[in-house]
Amino acid sequence: MISERECIELIQRYAAVQKNEYLVKGIGDDCAVIKKDETDHLLLTTDTLVEGVHFNLDWHPPYLLGRKSASVNLSDIAAMGGRPKACLLSVAFPGSVPSWFEDFMKGFSDVLVEHDTLLVGGDTVKGHHDIVITVTLVGETDKKHTCYRAGAQPGDTIWVSGPLGSAAAGLSLCQKGLCDLSDPADKWQQLVKAHLDPEPLVSLGKALAKSGLVRAMMDISDGLATDLAHLCKAGGVGAEIQQDLLPISETLEQAAAQLQTDAIDWIVKGGEDYQLLFTAKPSDERKLRQLVTDLTGGEIFAVGRIIEGQGVYLCHNGKREDISYQGYDHFQG
Amino acid sequence: MISERECIELIQRYAAVQKNEYLVKGIGDDCAVIKKDETDHLLLTTDTLVEGVHFNLDWHPPYLLGRKSASVNLSDIAAMGGRPKACLLSVAFPGSVPSWFEDFMKGFSDVLVEHDTLLVGGDTVKGHHDIVITVTLVGETDKKHTCYRAGAQPGDTIWVSGPLGSAAAGLSLCQKGLCDLSDPADKWQQLVKAHLDPEPLVSLGKALAKSGLVRAMMDISDGLATDLAHLCKAGGVGAEIQQDLLPISETLEQAAAQLQTDAIDWIVKGGEDYQLLFTAKPSDERKLRQLVTDLTGGEIFAVGRIIEGQGVYLCHNGKREDISYQGYDHFQG
Repeated sequence: MISERECIELIQRYAAVQKNEYLVKGIGDDCAVIKKDETDHLLLTTDTLVEGVHFNLDWHPPYLLGRKSASVNLSDIAAMGGRPKACLLSVAFPGSVPSWFEDFMKGFSDVLVEHDTLLVGGDTVKGHHDIVITVTLVGETDKKHTCYRAGAQPGDTIWVSGPLGSAAAGLSLCQKGLCDLSDPADKWQQLVKAHLDPEPLVSLGKALAKSGLVRAMMDISDGLATDLAHLCKAGGVGAEIQQDLLPISETLEQAAAQLQTDAIDWIVKGGEDYQLLFTAKPSDERKLRQLVTDLTGGEIFAVGRIIEGQGVYLCHNGKREDISYQGYDHFQG
Repeated sequence: MISERECIELIQRYAAVQKNEYLVKGIGDDCAVIKKDETDHLLLTTDTLVEGVHFNLDWHPPYLLGRKSASVNLSDIAAMGGRPKACLLSVAFPGSVPSWFEDFMKGFSDVLVEHDTLLVGGDTVKGHHDIVITVTLVGETDKKHTCYRAGAQPGDTIWVSGPLGSAAAGLSLCQKGLCDLSDPADKWQQLVKAHLDPEPLVSLGKALAKSGLVRAMMDISDGLATDLAHLCKAGGVGAEIQQDLLPISETLEQAAAQLQTDAIDWIVKGGEDYQLLFTAKPSDERKLRQLVTDLTGGEIFAVGRIIEGQGVYLCHNGKREDISYQGYDHFQG
C-alpha cells in the first residue's frame, strides 16, 4: 500500500519527467495550464465522482447531481479566471443504464448552457459495481490574466467570495434525513441547495482575474483550512484567519444548534462550498468591493491576512490555532 | 432502464443543444474536434477503464496496464491524424492505493514520453468497490489535414494498417492461462503483447493524414465489423470486405487451432487491435504503400471496397454475409 500523499507525489514525479514550452503549469493548481497561442492559455481539469463516496442517490435528485457534476468542474475553471469552452463526460454503469440518467443529463446540460460551454464528447462504459462519473473541462484565459494559487504576498488581505459551511451543513442535514427538498418553505433549503446544487462562480472568477487586483486565487472545494494551506504552500507564505470576520448566517447557526455541532467547524473545515478564495493588496479593498457589487450586487468577505512563514492559523479571543489541512478530505470520503 | 443505444442518443441529444463556431465535430468520431485558431484544431478524447471489465490484474502486469491506458487514448488521436500534446489521469481506488500503482505510473509515463505527450494533471479519488482509470488526452491537427470517420466514397479501397485479431487471441490465451509472459520464447508472446501492450500508431496516423490521400479514417478498437460499420454510417456508404484479403499470421492460426475457435472471428469481430482503418481512391494505392514503406518499413493491407448503399459485408467463396456491428462491445464487457 502507498499513502495518498505518496500517490500524489508519484504522479507529480512522473508528470515532471517531461517539460517543454507547451507546459505553463502542471499538477498542483485548480487546472493544468498549457499554451494555446501567443496570447491565450488553455485550461484543463478533470474530476471523478463515485457513487457512495462523492454522491448518494438516496437524497441527491438526479437532475441536481447532473448540475453538480458540471458545476464542480466549472468551478475549477472559475478559480483560474477562465472561460469554460468544452466538456467531455464519461460514465460507468454496472449493468444497465438507469432511467434516472435522463434527468442527470438534463441537469448536466442545463449548467453547461448557462455557462456557454459545449458538451463535445461522451462515453458510457460498463462498470463492475460502482457508478462512476468523470467530467473533463477545457477552458481558456488571456495569459496576462490567468490566476494561480501561487502569488500571495505577506500583508495581502485574504478574501472569500461568500459564506462558507453551507454545503457541509446541507450534507449533514441530508444524511440525517432532516430536509424536505420538495417543500420550498423548508427552512434548510438554502443549506441543502448549497450541497446538492452549488453555483460555479465563473463570471466572478473572470472579473476578478481581469481586474488585475488578485494575486492568488483558487476555489474552496476541500474546506478553507485545507485550501488556504494549499494556497499558502504554493506561495511560500502563511495565513491568519480572524474567526470573527468569517461570515455566518442565522440559518447555519440554527442548523448547528439542531445538529449539536459547531458552526465554525463547518465554516473552517467543511468542503464543497465552491466559493472563491483569493488574496489582494490591502489598498485594493475598496476597488474589489466595488467590482463585486457592480458585477453581482453581492458582497465579498475579508477574513484574514497573509503572513510570512508558514501554516494557516485561526485566531479567536487572543488564541491562535494551526488549522492547516484540517478540511474535508476527498480521498477519505 | 434504458439501453446503451438510447443512452448514447441521449448524450448526443444534449450535446446537440448548443452549437457554435467553436465546435468542429462533436460526439461520433474518435475525438471531439474544436477550433484552436485560424490554422489548427484541438482534439479531445477520454476513455474509462474499469477493473474486471476492461482489464484484469490476474494477467495484466501493472507496467503494461499503465502503457495500455495511455496507448488506447493515443490511438484515438492517431485516428484523426493528430499530434498528442497533453494528458490528464484520474484514478479511483477503493481503500488504499495499491503498491503496484508505481509500476502502472512508470508504464503510463513511458508511453507518453515515447509520444512527446505531457502528463499535466492527475487526480486520485476514493472509489467504492472498483478500480477505475480515466485518461483524457488533448491533441492538435492542422485543420486542413484532420481525418474524420466520414468521407469514404463508393469505389474507395478499404485499408487496414496491420493484421487484426491478435489482441482478441491474446485475451483468450490470457483468460485460459495459456501464456507465459516471463518467457521470451513463449510462442504466443506476439498475440499476448497485442492484448497487453498495443502500440498506438501516432506517426502513421499523422503521415496518412498529411498525405491528403486518406478520405476517412478511424482506429479499430471494437473490431473491424463494428468500426467499419461506424465509418460507413458516418459516410452514408456500405462496404465489402474480401475475406481472402485479410492478413492472417501463422501464429494466429495456431492459436485458433489450439483454442478450437475460428481465426476469422477474431480477425473480423475481435476488438482492441488499435490498427488504423482508412479508405482512399484506388488510384492512390501505390502512393500509399510507398508512404508506409518509407515511414515504417512495414506493410498496409487493402481488404475491400466501399460500395453504395449500406451495410458491411464479408465476402468469401461467392457468399456475402452482413457483419455490421458484430464486433466487440465495450459496454457488454
